[in-house]
Amino acid sequence: MNWEDNVRKVIPYTPGEQPVGDVIKLNTNENPYPPSPEVKKVLSEYDTSELRKYPDVYGGKLRDKLSEVYGVSRDNIFVGVGSDDVLAIAFLTFFNGREPVIFPDITYSFYDVWCDLYRIPYEMIPLNDEFRIIKEDYIRPNGGIVIPNPNAPTGVEKSVEDLEFIIKNNKGSIVIIDEAYVDFGGRSVLPLIEKYDNLLVVQTFSKSRSMAGVRIGMAFGSSKLIGYMNDVKFSINSYTMNRLTIEAGAAALEDNEYFVRTCEKVISTRERVKKQLKELGFDFPDSKANFIFATHKRVKAEDIFNAAKAKNIYVRWWNKPRIDDYLRISIGTDGEMDALVGFLREYLDGSI
Amino acid sequence: MNWEDNVRKVIPYTPGEQPVGDVIKLNTNENPYPPSPEVKKVLSEYDTSELRKYPDVYGGKLRDKLSEVYGVSRDNIFVGVGSDDVLAIAFLTFFNGREPVIFPDITYSFYDVWCDLYRIPYEMIPLNDEFRIIKEDYIRPNGGIVIPNPNAPTGVEKSVEDLEFIIKNNKGSIVIIDEAYVDFGGRSVLPLIEKYDNLLVVQTFSKSRSMAGVRIGMAFGSSKLIGYMNDVKFSINSYTMNRLTIEAGAAALEDNEYFVRTCEKVISTRERVKKQLKELGFDFPDSKANFIFATHKRVKAEDIFNAAKAKNIYVRWWNKPRIDDYLRISIGTDGEMDALVGFLREYLDGSI
Repeated sequence: MNWEDNVRKVIPYTPGEQPVGDVIKLNTNENPYPPSPEVKKVLSEYDTSELRKYPDVYGGKLRDKLSEVYGVSRDNIFVGVGSDDVLAIAFLTFFNGREPVIFPDITYSFYDVWCDLYRIPYEMIPLNDEFRIIKEDYIRPNGGIVIPNPNAPTGVEKSVEDLEFIIKNNKGSIVIIDEAYVDFGGRSVLPLIEKYDNLLVVQTFSKSRSMAGVRIGMAFGSSKLIGYMNDVKFSINSYTMNRLTIEAGAAALEDNEYFVRTCEKVISTRERVKKQLKELGFDFPDSKANFIFATHKRVKAEDIFNAAKAKNIYVRWWNKPRIDDYLRISIGTDGEMDALVGFLREYLDGSI
Repeated sequence: MNWEDNVRKVIPYTPGEQPVGDVIKLNTNENPYPPSPEVKKVLSEYDTSELRKYPDVYGGKLRDKLSEVYGVSRDNIFVGVGSDDVLAIAFLTFFNGREPVIFPDITYSFYDVWCDLYRIPYEMIPLNDEFRIIKEDYIRPNGGIVIPNPNAPTGVEKSVEDLEFIIKNNKGSIVIIDEAYVDFGGRSVLPLIEKYDNLLVVQTFSKSRSMAGVRIGMAFGSSKLIGYMNDVKFSINSYTMNRLTIEAGAAALEDNEYFVRTCEKVISTRERVKKQLKELGFDFPDSKANFIFATHKRVKAEDIFNAAKAKNIYVRWWNKPRIDDYLRISIGTDGEMDALVGFLREYLDGSI
């Protein structure tokens, strides 16, 4: 026998390219603004002798502060190493049935990766031609439901009312609403966790709080549901949230004014760039996220992607059915977006 | 149908108590000394604007530095959120056969938790009466082998020669040697990874490097083996090592002199305390770790445990077969150990 026979073989998720050097990086939906100065302050003053001790298994003051800021009890909060950690644990915890878990065909590309890894049956429900989720499609036997709102990479938002329709008609399943991008003008279903014990709302510090590099994600749900997730989490690794992460996260939450201001800035840049892209001949579903999912009327997405890359401007392109003529463009600073728009104007002029 | 029918129900690992306030904490094998001053320095000077970006998926300069310090290629190194993360991923990656995974009956209590969680068949091989691993017991059909060295909570070390006997006679299985405590005077099997592609050596920053609160673990193995682990890791959460952790870990590795000095200090305190415990009527296997696993000739471990706790001295006690008359006592500072020994002297005098 060979040990390789027993290896779990997977097709792993491919993260967006992380180029180094002097590039304009609009390919991984990072926030162009630094985290709150409070984060700098807390780290520079931190008593590192504390680091010799294990951290709090529940995330300590990070969870306390989330409870305060989001107005939910600590028992309704789960924290993890980015929303990927939170979602992976939720999949492992809740999706152990025979019926397929369902989610949109065009969506965050980690959902099917987790299903494959944990051998969870799943089915993808096609978005309509305008990249919209049809709520009635989610009323069918299932082993769980995952809906990102706004959806990625489309940026399309689904109304809270439509999501509630799905949640209340699926009381026998866990419904996960992945709100990674909700702070850029979307509406959260968070208030519904009091009404539905089958609802899990997942958010992250990676986009709106400018802390992709710190890895903080959180889930809100009924205490019963959070309890089951903690049991599984404590069976994998009790101490995932390290002391520095807890300090940095709590400090960022202290500075809500900064958070609101940077979100507004990203939103206003997005709205401006939408107009410019329209003028340049792009089409896109209306985005409520920190990116725009755009296709050009005449020029192929792949060509634009490669030409931009040659000029050190990175956007995201997938060679996948239905979306292979689209580019996902993250919202950067005004300067970065001006550079992108300038490049596009020149490139598209030259290519027609 | 109820969503609870599909929940993965587990009996989670119970971490050691984390009491707060003015206590002597000798129950979770934390290092009594703070991390290197280099860690303080790097954090206080860190440019937090970097935190808006995702970290390197391979652990960046932390892995580079490990490669330098341990003298192995970067392709032979996997880093994770503490050795629990590393081990959990190794179990999920490598233990997918029908034969049981085997490990000692008295050992780190997470091994069977991971097996239960991931539905891996396993069998525990009894240690002999002196808490020793009998190498011939591990020559039998199996789906993988896990051996902690030194073992926990016994502190007993197995020779590199005996471990090599097990590794070379199990070329069809992955053999994990969990060296969480190896830096306190044990000998590592690390050089054997060049010879055996089925060997995975796991270590951690939580004990000898005084960084339990930062969560860094690492595995060393053949590049093929590390590649499979990365595939699974990237299917769960690509970005587990955050930017602060990477900085702090790399800084600690810079200061090797500090590391050697604190390890020597812990070892010398341990050897001194061994003598004192003997004088007080304790028996214990000879420990090569930063704890002593002790039983008293006359007084029950549970009674000592409770009496110490009442005096705000925390050690670890398990109500489990074969070890319920033992205490695991972590090595603290000389002052902390003097307080423990003082308490024991008084308590044992009064109880006879």
